[in-house]
Amino acid sequence: MSKYVIGIDYGTDSVRALIVDAANGKEIASNVFYYPRWKAGKYCNPALNQFRQHPLDYTEGLEITIKNALAKCSAGVAENVVGISVDTTGSTPVAVDKHGVPLSLKAEFEENPNAMFVLWKDHTATGEADEINVLAKSWGGVDYTKYEGGVYSSEWFWAKVLHIIRTDEKVRNEAFSWVEHCDWIPALLTGNTDPVILKRSRCAAGHKAMWHPDFNGLPSEDFLVKLDPLLEGLRSRLYSDTFTCDIKVGNLSAEWAKRLGLKETVAIGAGAFDAHLGAVGGEIKPYYLSKVMGTSTCDMLIAPMKEIGDKLISGICGQVDGSIIPGMLGMEAGQSAFGDIYAWFRDLLLWPVTEILRNSTLLDESMKNRLVNEMVERMIPLLSEKASHIAPGESGIVAIDWMNGRRTPDADQTLKGAILGLSLGSDAPGIFRALVEATAFGAKKIVDRFVSEGVRIDGIVALGGVAKKSPFVMQVVADVINMPILVARSEQACALGTAMAAAAVAGLYPTVLEAQKAMGNGYEMEYKPIKANADIYAELYKKYSMAGDFAEKYSKQP
Amino acid sequence: MSKYVIGIDYGTDSVRALIVDAANGKEIASNVFYYPRWKAGKYCNPALNQFRQHPLDYTEGLEITIKNALAKCSAGVAENVVGISVDTTGSTPVAVDKHGVPLSLKAEFEENPNAMFVLWKDHTATGEADEINVLAKSWGGVDYTKYEGGVYSSEWFWAKVLHIIRTDEKVRNEAFSWVEHCDWIPALLTGNTDPVILKRSRCAAGHKAMWHPDFNGLPSEDFLVKLDPLLEGLRSRLYSDTFTCDIKVGNLSAEWAKRLGLKETVAIGAGAFDAHLGAVGGEIKPYYLSKVMGTSTCDMLIAPMKEIGDKLISGICGQVDGSIIPGMLGMEAGQSAFGDIYAWFRDLLLWPVTEILRNSTLLDESMKNRLVNEMVERMIPLLSEKASHIAPGESGIVAIDWMNGRRTPDADQTLKGAILGLSLGSDAPGIFRALVEATAFGAKKIVDRFVSEGVRIDGIVALGGVAKKSPFVMQVVADVINMPILVARSEQACALGTAMAAAAVAGLYPTVLEAQKAMGNGYEMEYKPIKANADIYAELYKKYSMAGDFAEKYSKQP
Repeated sequence: MSKYVIGIDYGTDSVRALIVDAANGKEIASNVFYYPRWKAGKYCNPALNQFRQHPLDYTEGLEITIKNALAKCSAGVAENVVGISVDTTGSTPVAVDKHGVPLSLKAEFEENPNAMFVLWKDHTATGEADEINVLAKSWGGVDYTKYEGGVYSSEWFWAKVLHIIRTDEKVRNEAFSWVEHCDWIPALLTGNTDPVILKRSRCAAGHKAMWHPDFNGLPSEDFLVKLDPLLEGLRSRLYSDTFTCDIKVGNLSAEWAKRLGLKETVAIGAGAFDAHLGAVGGEIKPYYLSKVMGTSTCDMLIAPMKEIGDKLISGICGQVDGSIIPGMLGMEAGQSAFGDIYAWFRDLLLWPVTEILRNSTLLDESMKNRLVNEMVERMIPLLSEKASHIAPGESGIVAIDWMNGRRTPDADQTLKGAILGLSLGSDAPGIFRALVEATAFGAKKIVDRFVSEGVRIDGIVALGGVAKKSPFVMQVVADVINMPILVARSEQACALGTAMAAAAVAGLYPTVLEAQKAMGNGYEMEYKPIKANADIYAELYKKYSMAGDFAEKYSKQP
Repeated sequence: MSKYVIGIDYGTDSVRALIVDAANGKEIASNVFYYPRWKAGKYCNPALNQFRQHPLDYTEGLEITIKNALAKCSAGVAENVVGISVDTTGSTPVAVDKHGVPLSLKAEFEENPNAMFVLWKDHTATGEADEINVLAKSWGGVDYTKYEGGVYSSEWFWAKVLHIIRTDEKVRNEAFSWVEHCDWIPALLTGNTDPVILKRSRCAAGHKAMWHPDFNGLPSEDFLVKLDPLLEGLRSRLYSDTFTCDIKVGNLSAEWAKRLGLKETVAIGAGAFDAHLGAVGGEIKPYYLSKVMGTSTCDMLIAPMKEIGDKLISGICGQVDGSIIPGMLGMEAGQSAFGDIYAWFRDLLLWPVTEILRNSTLLDESMKNRLVNEMVERMIPLLSEKASHIAPGESGIVAIDWMNGRRTPDADQTLKGAILGLSLGSDAPGIFRALVEATAFGAKKIVDRFVSEGVRIDGIVALGGVAKKSPFVMQVVADVINMPILVARSEQACALGTAMAAAAVAGLYPTVLEAQKAMGNGYEMEYKPIKANADIYAELYKKYSMAGDFAEKYSKQP
């Protein structure tokens, strides 16, 4: 009888359970659960960039998706499930008591957003991030940001923890420790959530919490107390060791085995971030840049530790031993906005629809809804179709893709986007094409940075919504980077990569790389650069770079 | 009994006759005639920027508007009309035979666009304009463009003449001479259209045909033949003297007196361009910048000849003795696009309406038309209203207003517009406000240039559609320039200014300035700068200038 593994993929809006045949990676069944409290907008304040998620959204989804997926399987599958691994967004930490229970699961905190998971895209801690950056460069000791590209982000662990304990005295007093979402779910499944003992993810710790073997773990108590005396003592209630995704953190607890209808022998793997396990699912291999392309991008590269050694790769978002594939250096880069820029332009063009058509007395509400839906749905496909008939360079428009700041190279969230070369003849498809080209130029900047830092790139693999659904965008990216781009076949690469990790955790394969080889779904498509376009883009890239240099200087003006 | 004068104002789409009481400028009656052939799109090809107008559109309009306006007047007005003057667009020349008859009025040319008036905005002669610019700088003689800001435009006389005679052999062979629209109508009314004798406008000759007393008139035969041997001999069939708008070119011919029901004693004035006589109607006075603000702007300044002397004002569009007010140096500047930029943004936002709603099967054609009309009409007022609630500098967006190139300072039609400081939160009203601010910054650049060239500016008077109808835009312009802006009261300043000229021509006033004093309608409004805004704009203007310097350098990249 076959053995099966389950990959649990927690995204921003929903959680998915995927049951996979461990022998060949065949996807047997899956189920998706949308977080009900999140969907209702609870505990969030978009105007303040405050985004919090309730642990019940996670735990209800965990049970329901696994049970629903199992219900679709034929007899014998459930008793042959041998491993479960989990990926989540991150950094998404929560305050816990000494038993590892998130404070928001306790009666007095159940409606307090500060007692909930602080979602990756929560930006309430920008001030704290600034303080960390200033202190790291000035305190006289080691710069703890050095393995994270030299810039600490408001989206990360320490900024968030400090912001919450400063803001909410009650949470501060009750918070024994803090746990990442990707660490808490595996701990929960094993029945051991003790925050001092539970096995923490290398990926979360290394990329977001300034953990590194060179530092003997997390930043020193000295540094943390200098940052804020409120942090005193927390370091000792966190962790010093971290674990890659091939490590078993325990077996399924009796309670959860019963709830899920699985055996207590099921191995539970150490958690990791969604993009990283997505790269595993997309069959990342050394020196192949693995791009998760959606609203933003996460660009990952792995290389044998011994080949990179101690070299610091300047301007990327982090380099951590084993964060993606155990035994390899995991390097992360990315663009702060990608598909989000296309959506921004769509919404800009919808302004008259929202402001005039919505208030018109000529139509009833039902007809307005149908018209608006038609326009929202048709917009990006139609812009893409029209833009595809414009030759590279033809419109004269060049854009800069920093509408959400710049993540890589050289993170700077204060930068802004721009559109140049506009004439009275510039139309929506022409501008849209320039925006697509700008995101592609931004992608090329990342490739160029790795190469200029001495890390070669042998190929590119794309996954995520844009990679699967936007052939126009993908061809432009291939033409601009002037390299072929493979598109991973799996529709659910994150969950599949997590299942691969589970198969290694369960001992079915000696390594994650071996699991990947056996279980990979391969590629569905390859975008090959068109030489004539690549030649034109090589010239336009110079104009993009020149405009970017100016936009950067310009944004520093008071 | 009062005396009356008639101002005839030929615009791009229509001609207006305005009957005015010469004693006080009271507007007695007016009538407008839309050119029927032009309205039907005849003889034009927008894709090629070919815009031609048939002389019958002009002559039919002349007769109909005067007769219709007279028909509205009480008894006694017609026999007391003592003067008629004419303004037109320009440069708008036509090929004529030796009797001064436009070729298109002859049977064999009646459908030939090359035998018609070549409208100001026709851009078919860009190649010829380039040749003139190159030759003027390189031929070893005087630079004939020097009183026209140093750059000759494809919109002007010589470029158009050369383009037509190169393109159309039949027209070349039949064309004895060429006449501007503003010269042909007065000639027609006097019954003397002999091209060698008819009195030519100083304003058209000086601003568009490189005529200057220093050159003994038009560019030398040597220069013209070097430009193209096809021009040989034409100079002698044109003119050497030119005339300001206070000069009588003759009296109404018997034929036209009969057609119009007016006396043969009516004095006919030398013609001039619409913007210039608009400035007269808007009560231009020395050192007051008179801005005609519409789709583009024409910014005019007058100063006593003796105070400016021989100084060349660098980077403006021309300086001609008497071109606006006889006896004063008339200086012209302007922005290539102003309201056109707002219309461009409106049309950009209408893209989904045109492309999706127009093709939707959810509505019938009649409802689509009503919805589209509602959106077109509501758009700019609503954008203005929403943008007015955004504080200066609040959005962080800064735009460059060169979407149609730059006319002044330092004409360069190859320049392009830009929008900087964009984020995912940038919305349509924020961008619209930045575009309005950009046009205001562009207006300030013109003021600054006059001042830096040693020509002081004591005040600003605005006229035209934007000045009358866009209080939001006008307040921003006043805040940016940080000077009060007076808005002329007359709804038809061009026709009123032309009537003032006619009153001087008829001898009712010794000078146009005296006529202006007696007949002016005054100002209806003054926009005063708001100090807090002016302070912020002084800073933003530096960013605009910095971005403009870059955009200029950037546009020169290959």
